[in-house]
Amino acid sequence: MLISELSARTGVAVATLKYYLREGLLMPGTATSATRASYAEEHVERVRLVRALVDVGGLSVAATRRVVEALDAPVRSPNDLLGIAHEALPIPGRDVPESPEVADLLADLGWRVAPDAVARRSLTAAIEATRRAGVPVSRKSLLAYADASEQVAAVDLDVTAEAGEAGGLSRMLLTVVAGTVMVDQVLSALRRLAQEHVSTVRAEGR
Amino acid sequence: MLISELSARTGVAVATLKYYLREGLLMPGTATSATRASYAEEHVERVRLVRALVDVGGLSVAATRRVVEALDAPVRSPNDLLGIAHEALPIPGRDVPESPEVADLLADLGWRVAPDAVARRSLTAAIEATRRAGVPVSRKSLLAYADASEQVAAVDLDVTAEAGEAGGLSRMLLTVVAGTVMVDQVLSALRRLAQEHVSTVRAEGR
Repeated sequence: MLISELSARTGVAVATLKYYLREGLLMPGTATSATRASYAEEHVERVRLVRALVDVGGLSVAATRRVVEALDAPVRSPNDLLGIAHEALPIPGRDVPESPEVADLLADLGWRVAPDAVARRSLTAAIEATRRAGVPVSRKSLLAYADASEQVAAVDLDVTAEAGEAGGLSRMLLTVVAGTVMVDQVLSALRRLAQEHVSTVRAEGR
Repeated sequence: MLISELSARTGVAVATLKYYLREGLLMPGTATSATRASYAEEHVERVRLVRALVDVGGLSVAATRRVVEALDAPVRSPNDLLGIAHEALPIPGRDVPESPEVADLLADLGWRVAPDAVARRSLTAAIEATRRAGVPVSRKSLLAYADASEQVAAVDLDVTAEAGEAGGLSRMLLTVVAGTVMVDQVLSALRRLAQEHVSTVRAEGR
C-alpha cells in the first residue's frame, strides 16, 4: 500500500509517518520507484505499536526506538525475550545500586532473578522515592504486593505463550514489550477501581 | 527555618523552591520581614512530596498543583479521600466513554464503584490502547488482573488506615495520593521481577 493508505489505515498523518521513518521508529517500505515505497501489514502493526507506546505508555522517541530496535533484532530463544524487553524499556532507577532490603526481599520470596536485572535497581529507587514522598513502605506490604505481582506475571506469561503459539517469536516479543508497558496502565486503572470497592465495603462494615 | 535551610534539608535548590512557591506547589512560609519568610516541618514534607510526584511519578506541574490543592482543601470524611485523590491524579482516558465490556467486568466482579468514577473510563482507554498495540486482552486475563488488584488495594487501604491513626485525615490523604502514584512504580518493578522469576521456573519445568 502507499503511504497515504498506511495513513488512512492507522489514522496517523502522513507527515507523522515520515517523521517515524526518519527517526527509525518505522521500518522503510519496499522502494517501487525513486520517490515511492510500498508498505505492508507489518507496517500497519508497527505504527499502531509506536502510537500506543508514545501516547499511552508515555515513552520518549529515544525509548520507543530502543523498543523497536529490540523487536527488529534477531531473537535467539524465548528465554532471551524478557531480558531484551526489560533492557529496552525505560524504567526509573537504572543508576541506583540495589539496596540490601531489595536483595533480602527477593531472597525471602525465593524469586529467581538475575543479579544484574535492571528491575532490582528500579524497585530500590521506587521504594526510596515512595518513602521520600511520605508514604510508609513496610516489609509486610512489600511481601503482599509481591504476591499479587506474581499472579499478574503468571497471567502475563500465559498471554505471551499464547501469542507465541499463534505468531512465533517476533509476536511473543511484541507481546512482552507492549504488554509490559501497556498493561501497567490497565493495572493502574484496576487498582483505583479496586481501592474504591474495598474502601466502600470496609466503610459499611464499620 | 530560612529558605536556605529548607533547601539544605530537602536537597532542592533555592531557585527551585522559589519556583514551587510561584507555581503554588509549596505553601508560603510565615513572613518575618518584608523580604523574608520562615518555613516549618510541613514545608520539608511538602517539598519531598512534590519532588517525588514530579521526578518519579512523572506528573506535570499542572497535575502536581491539582494534587497539592486537594491536599490543602478541607476534608470532610475518610470516605471522601479516595474520590478527591482520584479526581486530582492524572490518568489517561478521561474523555473516553466507559465501554460495555468494562461495565460488565465490574458487574461480574461485584465491585462497588461509582457510575461516574474516572477509573472506569481510564480502564476502557487502557484496554483499547493495549489491543491497538497488538496485545490481546481477554476477559479471563482481566478477571485475573482484577483479582490481583483487589489484593493490592487491600494493602493500600491498610497502609492508609495506619497513616490515619498516626497522623489524622491530612496524613491519610497524603498517603492515598502519594501512595497511588508512587506505589504504581513499586508494582511496575515488582511485576518485571516476577515475570523473570515465573519465566525461569517455567523454562526449567519444560
